[in-house]
Amino acid sequence: MKLDGKVVVAQGGGPTAVINQSLVGVVLESRKFEQVSKVYGAINGVAGIVNEDFLDLTQETTHNLEQVAVTPSSALFSTRDKPDVKYCKEIFNVLKAHDVRYFFYIGGNDSADTVRIVNEQAEQSDYEFRAIHIPKTIDNDLMVNDHTPGYGSAAKFVAQAFIGLNLDNRALPGVHIGVIMGRNAGFLTAASSIAQKYPDDGPHLIYLPERPFNVEQYLSDVKRIYEKYGRCLIAVSEGIVNEKGEPIALGLTKNVEKDAHGNAILSGTGALGDLLANLVKEKLNIKRVRSDTFGYLQRSFFGCVSDVDQHEAREVGEKAAQFAIWHNIDGSITIHRTGDYSVDYRITPLGQVAAKTKLMPDEFISKEGTNVTTAFKSYLRPLLGSDLHSAHRLRAPRAPKILRAEDQE
Amino acid sequence: MKLDGKVVVAQGGGPTAVINQSLVGVVLESRKFEQVSKVYGAINGVAGIVNEDFLDLTQETTHNLEQVAVTPSSALFSTRDKPDVKYCKEIFNVLKAHDVRYFFYIGGNDSADTVRIVNEQAEQSDYEFRAIHIPKTIDNDLMVNDHTPGYGSAAKFVAQAFIGLNLDNRALPGVHIGVIMGRNAGFLTAASSIAQKYPDDGPHLIYLPERPFNVEQYLSDVKRIYEKYGRCLIAVSEGIVNEKGEPIALGLTKNVEKDAHGNAILSGTGALGDLLANLVKEKLNIKRVRSDTFGYLQRSFFGCVSDVDQHEAREVGEKAAQFAIWHNIDGSITIHRTGDYSVDYRITPLGQVAAKTKLMPDEFISKEGTNVTTAFKSYLRPLLGSDLHSAHRLRAPRAPKILRAEDQE
Repeated sequence: MKLDGKVVVAQGGGPTAVINQSLVGVVLESRKFEQVSKVYGAINGVAGIVNEDFLDLTQETTHNLEQVAVTPSSALFSTRDKPDVKYCKEIFNVLKAHDVRYFFYIGGNDSADTVRIVNEQAEQSDYEFRAIHIPKTIDNDLMVNDHTPGYGSAAKFVAQAFIGLNLDNRALPGVHIGVIMGRNAGFLTAASSIAQKYPDDGPHLIYLPERPFNVEQYLSDVKRIYEKYGRCLIAVSEGIVNEKGEPIALGLTKNVEKDAHGNAILSGTGALGDLLANLVKEKLNIKRVRSDTFGYLQRSFFGCVSDVDQHEAREVGEKAAQFAIWHNIDGSITIHRTGDYSVDYRITPLGQVAAKTKLMPDEFISKEGTNVTTAFKSYLRPLLGSDLHSAHRLRAPRAPKILRAEDQE
Repeated sequence: MKLDGKVVVAQGGGPTAVINQSLVGVVLESRKFEQVSKVYGAINGVAGIVNEDFLDLTQETTHNLEQVAVTPSSALFSTRDKPDVKYCKEIFNVLKAHDVRYFFYIGGNDSADTVRIVNEQAEQSDYEFRAIHIPKTIDNDLMVNDHTPGYGSAAKFVAQAFIGLNLDNRALPGVHIGVIMGRNAGFLTAASSIAQKYPDDGPHLIYLPERPFNVEQYLSDVKRIYEKYGRCLIAVSEGIVNEKGEPIALGLTKNVEKDAHGNAILSGTGALGDLLANLVKEKLNIKRVRSDTFGYLQRSFFGCVSDVDQHEAREVGEKAAQFAIWHNIDGSITIHRTGDYSVDYRITPLGQVAAKTKLMPDEFISKEGTNVTTAFKSYLRPLLGSDLHSAHRLRAPRAPKILRAEDQE
């Protein structure tokens, strides 16, 4: 059975460096099917559907679509709107009026939940259409998926930043703290571990949201590393929590800002980094302490993309169109690792992905909780793409001392 | 006349992405001269000379030197030490004892001043040797030079970050502030202007240390832009000052930390960005306001290097060895633009470069002081290298509305 009608594609949540690859995958693949009359792009996610703000992407050139594909962030813009039942009824009025039969929403677990609710409404109102969630998140926290498009490129940014910070920290020693995005899952923070090439390389301490953060333990960890190496490089997730599960960052903000999904905003301020730096200065009496909050740079930096991530982001878009238009199936596109390294794409019932969060499994976190395991690094490496180089050191021998010959090592 | 003896090369000040190119340029070129008995690298800058901490780089492989050349940060490590006369006497005792006749110091204007003082001491003590300063600084603030090695790569990082932030800010509108390094000179902050491709692209406001920062004017600027575009992207130098010339950032810190050169530490905290963000939240009542402090990422990020910057950094090292060893001249290597785009290298008396700061000329700053001119962009573009791409937008037409046909634009 061929379901004739229009396609609507939209992008939700935080942008990534490769989310436009998925958009272009949907558009180019959908345009091949004769039952698709038009391919519309909704501007600002679900908000654009309600407002009938559509671009007619059937009239976009293939060449420009390819140029947009390699541009980071969401070309159709985004939204943090979380549709309720009333909102969904408005969505349907618009979808019916425009004869839309295929809806593709590229986003994270909140966006997957939106697709799920929209699809339920469609079933209740006996309107025949396919709703597909296409995975996207730098947090890498979607269930069922081995990993998610957007993560590889953000992880490459974090890895490259820490390779640089580690070298900087060796050249001018002190304590350096890098604060990385990730509300509940530590995957992105853990990518800093790629900088650990030589045995004394940092990050020496990695604090993840999966393990409670204790201030006394933190100070004792930093003291131990600093005494051993004369320096200490630290990777911290913005989402670290205390023993009660309360985010450390929230204790620093007077008026906690929340998004429409009820998630507290942890990014966009340097407060957590400054707190952790000041603790070291004051309690350990170490002078040179710096913190860097990676902020929004890590999710849409231009020119630091993993080619593997790019290819997969394109393919989840293409597969979404194929599953929906050829096979008439609803669901969430999921990525499954089939080899070292190869993947396959499946379609998974929305309820298995929507509004759930995947955390780092125990086998990826070291026993003491402040580093990752080799298993994690093996998992991560292929996702960073083909062109991540590593840092090199001088290996020349020491020259003999003359005036201080007695100090000779 | 051939001056026989050893070479010492060292790196000072903040690391850059290409400072090891200059190191390798000096080492490979020096090793070709028969009058050079050994090439030593001093560990931790001038501190390494005093402590006789030398690597014998004559015994380093050419291949590993090439690998180190493409690694960011200072492979010989760095120092913030500012030698006084006593310190310089210790340096000479070591230099004489080791028969060092050529001293190359890669660094900024403070390092140039160190070379100048060291050289004066040499003349006073009738010790025949050549002292050469090799330029390096992401701030681009060295006199005589058209620009300095390290700037192009840091500028490319800032440009790529702002291309991404501009797209991110379009996708999820609000006010976004990026804080960039640069104590006195705004060159690095000004590199954010490369993101201005389409007429409504940000950064919409660029605040440089060359123009006084006034809080009332800032709020009025932001309000105007936000009302026009529904968003506002801002680039701010960490070194912005009030009408009295006092850094805004210093008013935020209880105990101002200074380096050995008497420069206050402005980096390593998110306080300035947070202050500017809170002002907008509180005074303009705009909800979505974020700040990112680029911090140490911009100076030694791995994998974001300008090839032009790389080549020039290599050449200033090579030319330094040639001027000193072939021509027996002291001085500072300077870069001069000879075409669009070509450069030549000269040797300039140390006093013309040492301890002086070049600021952005008036013709690079727009009349209202919150943007750059076309002249600046023409100056900057070749320094960013050959592979900086630009962002692309969808250009498809709007689809006609059906339910809201009366809203049709």
